[in-house]
Amino acid sequence: MRTLHHVPHHPPSRLVRLALAEKRLPVELRSVPIWERPEDFLILNPAGEVPVLRDREPLANEAHLAGAPGAQPPKLLTLCGASVIVEYLEEAYPQINLMGRTLAQKAETRRLVDWFMRLFDRDVTSALVGEKIDKRLSRQSVDSTAIRRGYKNLKFHLDYLGWLAETRSWLGGHDLSLADFAAAAQISTLDYLGEINWHQVPAVRDWYSRIKSRPCFRGLLSDRVPGRQPPAHYADLDF
Amino acid sequence: MRTLHHVPHHPPSRLVRLALAEKRLPVELRSVPIWERPEDFLILNPAGEVPVLRDREPLANEAHLAGAPGAQPPKLLTLCGASVIVEYLEEAYPQINLMGRTLAQKAETRRLVDWFMRLFDRDVTSALVGEKIDKRLSRQSVDSTAIRRGYKNLKFHLDYLGWLAETRSWLGGHDLSLADFAAAAQISTLDYLGEINWHQVPAVRDWYSRIKSRPCFRGLLSDRVPGRQPPAHYADLDF
Repeated sequence: MRTLHHVPHHPPSRLVRLALAEKRLPVELRSVPIWERPEDFLILNPAGEVPVLRDREPLANEAHLAGAPGAQPPKLLTLCGASVIVEYLEEAYPQINLMGRTLAQKAETRRLVDWFMRLFDRDVTSALVGEKIDKRLSRQSVDSTAIRRGYKNLKFHLDYLGWLAETRSWLGGHDLSLADFAAAAQISTLDYLGEINWHQVPAVRDWYSRIKSRPCFRGLLSDRVPGRQPPAHYADLDF
Repeated sequence: MRTLHHVPHHPPSRLVRLALAEKRLPVELRSVPIWERPEDFLILNPAGEVPVLRDREPLANEAHLAGAPGAQPPKLLTLCGASVIVEYLEEAYPQINLMGRTLAQKAETRRLVDWFMRLFDRDVTSALVGEKIDKRLSRQSVDSTAIRRGYKNLKFHLDYLGWLAETRSWLGGHDLSLADFAAAAQISTLDYLGEINWHQVPAVRDWYSRIKSRPCFRGLLSDRVPGRQPPAHYADLDF
């Protein structure tokens, strides 16, 4: 069985769950308390980070099932990190394309995945989610300056997201792509904390409403962080 | 002409220069003072970061040159960020493969590129190069605690790099790959500052000596940071 080691409120983990669900690839989820640095997990990924996907190599698997002469049993692959995993999924399971087809589309998808996974995370999520949830789970003291900086940066990032949503069908261009899932992974985590004032960002709300209504989103909307309930609108498709 | 907007002592810029040179793709280099946030550069990349590659779409270009009926003039692509650029180069110019051929090899190359570009950078380079060069260029005050933390992390990262170099032909496995160039981009920047004690890390030295001798490395070894000379061994192939 395909297994994803993840943290439920962690945007890179959410990006991978959305990509797997959109591609209709079933997966068993295993929540990892990474702040405790469990040794058996560090063997899988020496970086000590989620998400980590374990998957039987699909091409070898098909040859094996077909009983091809000299076929090797399928290798179990360990894929570390959201960008490594989504590149793998695009190549291993290309039937549903989430990257784009031309060089220009792929470059734009990857630019925006990097934007939301790295820049948005550095500017906003590491401050708001890092301080409000992660530090509580690992019993560290909270830095209120970081939280204020996170709110200031959130405004800039919502402006950029709103501009993309207003000028394009989906964030990366004409088609739904990993760019939308990367942004939705961040936004859904912040929305769980009640950090998005939806009345102030109508273009972002319209885009998020469309992506939130997709079947691939259901798993995320039923997640609960221990000891912290989401606002009433979190799982509401008509928020 | 292909153009790379870069910062000479910046590891992600160096990774892209090495990949371009190994693939024998000529490029015009333009050094960007990103700490001044020049407006014409922010139009190219709203993230305000180097490297940015501008390149004429190669496939369209070939059809255009061949005078194919209905061929469009080649589009000028703008590619933002080292990971976006190296993925593009692998697909647009596949004659020299630097990613690996199987799903497992590609995943390992991408894991190590991310390791050196993101983790090594966060743990070591942002502290040592960020404090010693970048802050001087942007006239900010230096944080000596960050520098001490950078040295401590450097030891851990050199141990891991040494383990990879000892147990594999190249860092990602049997073949030279972007994993080697990502690591060399970081190590060459630190070596310019004289931060690597080569006598303590013989396996890393053997690996670095092999990669430094390649023709693709020549451009990096002739770089100079204004106001800061490298140690005598920096450009010496027999260091």
